Amino acid sequence: MAKKMNAFYAQSGGVTAVINASACGVIETARRHKDKIGKVYAGRNGIIGALTEELIDTTKETDAAIAALRSTPSGAFGSCRFKLKSLEANKREYTRLIEVFKAHNIGYFFYNGGGDSADTCFKISQLSEQMGYPIQAIHVPKTVDNDLPITDCCPGFGSVAKYIAVSTLEASYDVRSMAKTSTKVFVLEVMGRHAGWIAAAGGLVEDHGIPVVILFPEIEFDQKKFLARVNKLVKEHGYCTVVVSEGCHYPDGTFLAEQGTRDAFGHAQLGGAAPVVANMIKDALGHKFHWAVADYLQRAARHIASKTDVKQAYELGKKAVELAIAGHNSVMPTVDRISDVPYKYKIGMADLKDVANVEKFMPRDFITRDGFGITPKCKRYLTPLIQGEDYPKYQDGLPVYVTLKNVAVAKKLPTFKL
Amino acid sequence: MAKKMNAFYAQSGGVTAVINASACGVIETARRHKDKIGKVYAGRNGIIGALTEELIDTTKETDAAIAALRSTPSGAFGSCRFKLKSLEANKREYTRLIEVFKAHNIGYFFYNGGGDSADTCFKISQLSEQMGYPIQAIHVPKTVDNDLPITDCCPGFGSVAKYIAVSTLEASYDVRSMAKTSTKVFVLEVMGRHAGWIAAAGGLVEDHGIPVVILFPEIEFDQKKFLARVNKLVKEHGYCTVVVSEGCHYPDGTFLAEQGTRDAFGHAQLGGAAPVVANMIKDALGHKFHWAVADYLQRAARHIASKTDVKQAYELGKKAVELAIAGHNSVMPTVDRISDVPYKYKIGMADLKDVANVEKFMPRDFITRDGFGITPKCKRYLTPLIQGEDYPKYQDGLPVYVTLKNVAVAKKLPTFKL
Repeated sequence: MAKKMNAFYAQSGGVTAVINASACGVIETARRHKDKIGKVYAGRNGIIGALTEELIDTTKETDAAIAALRSTPSGAFGSCRFKLKSLEANKREYTRLIEVFKAHNIGYFFYNGGGDSADTCFKISQLSEQMGYPIQAIHVPKTVDNDLPITDCCPGFGSVAKYIAVSTLEASYDVRSMAKTSTKVFVLEVMGRHAGWIAAAGGLVEDHGIPVVILFPEIEFDQKKFLARVNKLVKEHGYCTVVVSEGCHYPDGTFLAEQGTRDAFGHAQLGGAAPVVANMIKDALGHKFHWAVADYLQRAARHIASKTDVKQAYELGKKAVELAIAGHNSVMPTVDRISDVPYKYKIGMADLKDVANVEKFMPRDFITRDGFGITPKCKRYLTPLIQGEDYPKYQDGLPVYVTLKNVAVAKKLPTFKL
Repeated sequence: MAKKMNAFYAQSGGVTAVINASACGVIETARRHKDKIGKVYAGRNGIIGALTEELIDTTKETDAAIAALRSTPSGAFGSCRFKLKSLEANKREYTRLIEVFKAHNIGYFFYNGGGDSADTCFKISQLSEQMGYPIQAIHVPKTVDNDLPITDCCPGFGSVAKYIAVSTLEASYDVRSMAKTSTKVFVLEVMGRHAGWIAAAGGLVEDHGIPVVILFPEIEFDQKKFLARVNKLVKEHGYCTVVVSEGCHYPDGTFLAEQGTRDAFGHAQLGGAAPVVANMIKDALGHKFHWAVADYLQRAARHIASKTDVKQAYELGKKAVELAIAGHNSVMPTVDRISDVPYKYKIGMADLKDVANVEKFMPRDFITRDGFGITPKCKRYLTPLIQGEDYPKYQDGLPVYVTLKNVAVAKKLPTFKL
């Protein structure tokens, strides 16, 4: 590309406590390379912003506002749950994307998301070859589920893991205090539809003397074994904590709690496994229970973000721009772990074709033989990821989070119906 | 009392992020007055420890361990849900208490709890007059529900309020990001059986531009009005957040969600109002939702405790000992607010007879006319209480919380059956 091209950046899928730190990394790095990259346009609500030509001009934001993204949770430009069909199935959308890219001189496409979004980014990366439009598509990894392949971990996960570990520790101290005459079992439901990485983080409290049972999506739920385990722990310790993944399911694939609704990708909307498990315990063992469902609180909890996670989110955003400048297409920057203790890693690179639509589950040797806990190997993996605190500033008792101006770029094209 | 007497300290009812800060205040202050007060014995699991003669010798704990209580959530000595009957109804328990107090030379009784516990403490304070045993009973206020009368606020509340305000802000940023193609309504269920103080804290995010609907236990639930309000906010903002108190109920007194079980005090065990509200919105308005139930996470969240709250919890524990030394009986130290801005208060004192069994609800002028929000007056009340952060130390990514040795005092009496 001889002419200096603009960049498109968008956020996709469930947002996290640190996805804006990646946005910060992308935009700050692009601003430092104004000789190579023109403006960064952000998609309003992810890829939808590209299709509808709703672009946000990030050059209208001050350096201070962009810097503040580093400590602001959520998706500053809006996210979306929207999966592009294949080129064969819906050529109209790809043609439109190229029109928008052309109209706004966009040559770089940075997509910040998880597995489904990596697929979208991969499809965009093929536009060059398949439709003759020169674009470099770089995927910036982001998912609290930690289920992207190749990269050692995914930005967003370390902070959720820290939140779940801290919350499990605190709530377990609480139930321990109450157990003599009141609550004996505390059940915490956490995210993780197919992969148990988030639930695993609850297991980190075991080294603090907390009796904990983890229910992973990777392990088929066995009610009898589970109740026996809870019963044993309550007899031994007087109480126990259960961390149940929303994706926990019976051998026939039925989730412990389905809400009966599906999202735009056709996934079942889950929630409510905790009360199911709690009532199961009450009915079988008679123990008084309390249960919590962390839901958005866990992935939005920037106030207790992992410093390691924030740093990596930024670095991967930065690296994405550097890879684009170096001429790469269809790649994703990765975290490549070098050692656990001391924790060392470098930022590497993966081909998007190897990333899209591949889910990384908990390895079996990260889960104890009985299926209810995590192994020392898993603890060695998790511990560095929750290291360090990265507190936001506070004013009047509340964190200072930025809301950007999000100034629209003037449209040049006719309206496009989604 | 000519002879130097020992003190009994116990924790009662639901524990909080800062009840141990009060314990720290009691024990450190008693240690500074060894000329006046002998040992501090803690009840293992509240008043039950006094009845069963399960006393913990706090002199076996180092100064460092006691100091660490200040930043440790939960009840370090165990709490209980156990209400003494009246002297007439169960003289046997009072006779036993006096035997235990006599056997261990206990002349001071510090009880750290909420409304039900204030009643227990009041009954103990009458032992002197009614049964001729000289004891000074001082109540140390503690309740996340913030529903004790006379005192301006209750230790434990400020930290829950901060947690709820921060979490509501963070989750609202999240749903705002997702609203275009996915979640439009986020529902957070918070504690508060009869009083809406905790729910009110969610209203503090309104000044950050968040459209929020609060459902208070003080306001009878009107489904039609509620849905109209949610509908209006989603139309205007694209999304909204609902903070629902567990005590929210219909005009006939039925809670939005009862679990059908009751605690030791005969209170219905609540939980599950959030999914009820979320599904109500889905059915009537069709909006995709997410819901969370904070449960123990909110009251145990020492990691995001309010500095003001921690300070007051300590000061009230300290003052309780000072009141005892000054010869008081049947009293409770209080927070007396002097001004909102700048926030000033002094530590005062209330008679227990005016505290026991009185619940302080949200004043009507703290709630907006439509019943779904908080007024500027309420914001002025709440804002100082969530001021300041008081972070615990961290090691390996998790907070460093203390677990005491809790060495038992040798028993001198026959076993007592509860």
